[in-house]
Amino acid sequence: MSIVVVGSIAFDTVATPSGRAENILAGAATFFSLAASYFTEVRVVGVVGEDFTAEHEKVFTHRGIDTRGIEHAKGKTFRWGGQYSDNLNEAKTTFTELNVFENFQPHIPREYQDSQFLFLANIQPSLQAAVRLEMGGVQLTGGDTMNYWIKDYRAELLETLKLVNILLINDTETKMLAGDHSLPRAAKKVLAMGPKALVVKHGEYGATIFFREGAFGIGSHPFRAPALPLEEVKDPTGAGDSFAGGFMGYLASQEEISREVLKRALFYGGVMGSFVVEQFGPERLKTLTRQEIDGRFQVFRELTHLE
Amino acid sequence: MSIVVVGSIAFDTVATPSGRAENILAGAATFFSLAASYFTEVRVVGVVGEDFTAEHEKVFTHRGIDTRGIEHAKGKTFRWGGQYSDNLNEAKTTFTELNVFENFQPHIPREYQDSQFLFLANIQPSLQAAVRLEMGGVQLTGGDTMNYWIKDYRAELLETLKLVNILLINDTETKMLAGDHSLPRAAKKVLAMGPKALVVKHGEYGATIFFREGAFGIGSHPFRAPALPLEEVKDPTGAGDSFAGGFMGYLASQEEISREVLKRALFYGGVMGSFVVEQFGPERLKTLTRQEIDGRFQVFRELTHLE
Repeated sequence: MSIVVVGSIAFDTVATPSGRAENILAGAATFFSLAASYFTEVRVVGVVGEDFTAEHEKVFTHRGIDTRGIEHAKGKTFRWGGQYSDNLNEAKTTFTELNVFENFQPHIPREYQDSQFLFLANIQPSLQAAVRLEMGGVQLTGGDTMNYWIKDYRAELLETLKLVNILLINDTETKMLAGDHSLPRAAKKVLAMGPKALVVKHGEYGATIFFREGAFGIGSHPFRAPALPLEEVKDPTGAGDSFAGGFMGYLASQEEISREVLKRALFYGGVMGSFVVEQFGPERLKTLTRQEIDGRFQVFRELTHLE
Repeated sequence: MSIVVVGSIAFDTVATPSGRAENILAGAATFFSLAASYFTEVRVVGVVGEDFTAEHEKVFTHRGIDTRGIEHAKGKTFRWGGQYSDNLNEAKTTFTELNVFENFQPHIPREYQDSQFLFLANIQPSLQAAVRLEMGGVQLTGGDTMNYWIKDYRAELLETLKLVNILLINDTETKMLAGDHSLPRAAKKVLAMGPKALVVKHGEYGATIFFREGAFGIGSHPFRAPALPLEEVKDPTGAGDSFAGGFMGYLASQEEISREVLKRALFYGGVMGSFVVEQFGPERLKTLTRQEIDGRFQVFRELTHLE
């Protein structure tokens, strides 16, 4: 089944201990859709400026991604600059130029309306809600958010969370959203806000999925997938969005959503996150094969598997 | 097979968001030996003062722990005060009174000499080395250390590491010891210092074991065990030492050290760490049953197990 993703398309300038890259194609919708494209049909919604060329569009179309939902606006594409120190877990933003993204009003093309899966990448919560309402036939909605919306757009975010079935955020965001320092308690509070499941991304330690009692007709025990200890992380940008792409893409490729499928999706999320950080930008996601992906899936499985 | 543990026995005064406890029996050797006692015969070596009563000793002997290696010295037992804020991962030391621990010269009773396993809890590296050399017949030595020794006793520590087969430390200590911010690279550097295996404890995210190529006659792929997401952590003190006790105790209980045994040991370490934090001090480790322990082992296994 196909999945629609709504989010940012950007040009990033990134500096990490491994090097520096300028104006590389990036943004949550880019990472997500490339990662998801290895599992299912992907349709992207976003906005770009006049500096977004046919070459950039080919990055999507070469992976079979439907780009009819990319709006071409007057002006420049969203640009972001970030710097990572030795602690690769946090980026220091060096500049943000919203450009055409500032007045982004996502519009879902009619041809996308039959998609059954939707992913609301990290944008203003009211826009996320509007997209969800525009996509009446969607069966499963995933979503992301960030500290800025949690702090300053709480009311809007709480409305949006009622429409999101699976929320994917990190430890800090979970604790901030719930106002609780205990992760499992915070998870319970977030699940009471609407989502049936909450995926908490732990960076290099993997991710945990928490379930609302009775969600998906399965038990409420959490499940945890590890991340691969990687010797070299060249550029951590996009790891979370690629995780979401692997997770949601795998779900969309399955007949039904069982506990086992959700568990595997969590592993595939970690796998896609582990690939993207090996190179700057989404480079590594352009040329993967399903064989490479399943090979690493087995490595992840072996990493924690007891006989 | 039996295991000898050398380390601190202390009285702690601890404040956490869940409450406060004064002068409770604690110390690395206490947590380690109680945790290990559920798996194998444990013999403890440490020093206490005149304030260490028969009641305190019974905490050990009730669990079948051999206390003939506890030296009773003139003066007071080592006392430590610590405070945890909402972030339970780090303690702020409020006071340290070394007392009889200041001039601790561990001595291994003759009756302990036939033990084949040894654990050197976190004490001065030269003392650790002396103990190891005193125990000539030991087949497997585990060890711990901390930032203070890594920074200010590096030469001594490097000598000790040549005598340690399995080192158990946390992420920060591993990176500090290796001078490398990448965990897998740091692990490789630490393994080059002597140990055949390195267990890196990730707190609430579990632990990873890294192997030197060819160590224990098994592959060099790392293995990761999760930790249980706990709703309430009353007192994190002793989690690392209880982890070590579960890990080493399980190893000592097995016929041979295979990859599968090391994996299970890592799970048992996490299990013991998850129990101890449920109450202040080592309280929870006094009354466990092997059934409760194996029940939680299954929960941990389920937490990451793919069909």
